Parts: sequence; C-alpha cells; structure tokens
Amino acid sequence: MDIQEFVANSIGRWRSQRSAHHLAFGHFEAITSEIEIIDLAVSDPAVIELCQAYRIESDEIVSPFRMSWEGQSDWEDSEAAKGTCILVPVPDRTQPNSGKLLRDRGYAEEMAAAGEYHLTADGTFVLTTAYDRAAAEEKIWFVNPNVRCRVSLIKTSAGTGVVTASFSSEIRQTGS
Amino acid sequence: MDIQEFVANSIGRWRSQRSAHHLAFGHFEAITSEIEIIDLAVSDPAVIELCQAYRIESDEIVSPFRMSWEGQSDWEDSEAAKGTCILVPVPDRTQPNSGKLLRDRGYAEEMAAAGEYHLTADGTFVLTTAYDRAAAEEKIWFVNPNVRCRVSLIKTSAGTGVVTASFSSEIRQTGS
Repeated sequence: MDIQEFVANSIGRWRSQRSAHHLAFGHFEAITSEIEIIDLAVSDPAVIELCQAYRIESDEIVSPFRMSWEGQSDWEDSEAAKGTCILVPVPDRTQPNSGKLLRDRGYAEEMAAAGEYHLTADGTFVLTTAYDRAAAEEKIWFVNPNVRCRVSLIKTSAGTGVVTASFSSEIRQTGS
Repeated sequence: MDIQEFVANSIGRWRSQRSAHHLAFGHFEAITSEIEIIDLAVSDPAVIELCQAYRIESDEIVSPFRMSWEGQSDWEDSEAAKGTCILVPVPDRTQPNSGKLLRDRGYAEEMAAAGEYHLTADGTFVLTTAYDRAAAEEKIWFVNPNVRCRVSLIKTSAGTGVVTASFSSEIRQTGS
C-alpha cells in the first residue's frame, strides 16, 4: 500500500470511539466523535499556503486532505473536542513508502507541525511528530475497508516516557 | 526480534489499563488489571501436557510461559476478570519469525486454542486465533522496555465484522 492508496481508503465519514489512558494517574477518558476526511486539490489555496510555509514545491506532494472532527468527552475538564486540519503528504523521492506529513496544526500542541511517516509491509501507517515539549507517535491501520484502528502515544520530548496512550476504533458511516 | 526475545522482554509484572469498545452499541468498558508473565521450563508437566494435546514434540517449542491476570471492570454485567493460562510458541521450521502459539484456554472462549503468530519487521507480535464462533486478532508491541501496547479485535467467525476492539497499555511494575 502506498500513501495515495492509504489516503484514498481513508476518505469518508467515520464514527470514532476513542479511549485515552492517562498513564501517570491511571485515568480513563472516553471520547465519541465524528470524523470527516475529504480530499483536496493540490491547487487548493490552503494547501499551497501550507507548502509555502515549509518551502515545499507542489510537484513534491501527493493526496492532500482535510480532516475535521467533532466529539464529546466524558472528562469534565476537557475542552470541546472539535477541530479541523489540513494534511499534506510529501513522499521521499528515494523511499516512496516514507516521507513527511505537513499539518497546519498538531494534535499535542496547537501549532503547525511536520511529522515523519512510513508505511509498513502490512499496511500500517506510522507517524512520528516532534513538538517543543512532547513527541507523538501514531499508528493507523485498516482492519477491513470500513474499520480503522488508531493508536496514539504522547511522550515527553526526550521520547522516553509515555504520558498518554490512546486508541480509536473508527467505523465508516454510510450515506450522506 | 525473534519470539524468544519477545517473550523474554515480556517476563514480569505489568499494570494494565484496558479499554474495550463494544462497537455495535458504542459502549466503552474500562478494565484495570495486574498481569504477571513468568517463564516456564520446556519440561514443565503442564507444558508437556499441552504439547501432547496438540501432538507437538518438546524439541519443536521455545520459551513457554504462564500469564496470569486479575482485574476489575467498570461494566456491572462483566464477570470477574481473573485467570491464568499457559502459552507455548511453536516456531515454523522454515520461517522462524512465525509459527503457532498453543494456549490452554482462549480469551474469546474458555477452551484450548492454537493461534498463528508472526513478528513484523518493526517488532510487532501479531496473533490470529480462530474459534468456533469468533476470530481474534491481536497485536502487541513494545514502546520501550517498560511499556507495552496491545490491540485485540474480536470478529465474527467469518472474519468480516469487528465486534469488539480493545486496547491495553501495560506498564512494567518494579519491585517484587
């Protein structure tokens, strides 16, 4: 599977159950959300703007997409889990199953971020992103065309300690 | 990583946070448990008995171990999550990174079960087990020597529908 196929398989509306494990104090958080993933044109102004911020040429990118989510958490202290971001894969010229993923805002911190991705032989998308004060490691794979699993780890910036481990099961929604 | 190394890295006491997603009705279940994994001798009578049940010779097996767990679920209908089982890897002669895993009882049904495992290039242990009325697919990987992640999927026996998706984050406990 290449990144174009992985993105194409991801396009659609998904219902997500996500559990976050806050490891230091053993807390479970449950989040239910709707996720929408739509493909964007390489010529989309927002895509061009993001590429320019990273000095990436348009002919280096493939399969840009927008991901939007809106969810509810059972944790009273949590903020409203609603947002949208643009993601742009930039495959390596020499190793097409790996590359950079540009994002106009990150998960762990509200800022633009470029992560490093690769696709494993069994079709798992692995993304690592370094932030100022944290590092994120994410694995996404399809169980079947209509079920995705996603494991996200937030680590301390040194990368040694795992602060939060979360798991999403995502079911494709049919209809409009 | 080979299966011997994977089992050796797993020996110890672990504190587990597990979230189960019951997908049909969007239910979240939270389970906190203690897991203990100890290595067994190839000559252990219980190991020999399990091998005999599957007509496996002792010289075909490596790194037998016992896993015991005791946990508490927040789901009132759930049974006490306590148990123990013996697991015996039987590597393929020709493909040492894959093989069978014998188990004297299964997760999804309370009976002996033999699953098929393989280790991926990035060190993920993948186990699939077919039961009479269900199929289980499990992935386990180390984030660091003291943190394991485990994703378990219970599917219908035809393997198409996912019934339950669960995720465990396991932290090694130090001391005795």
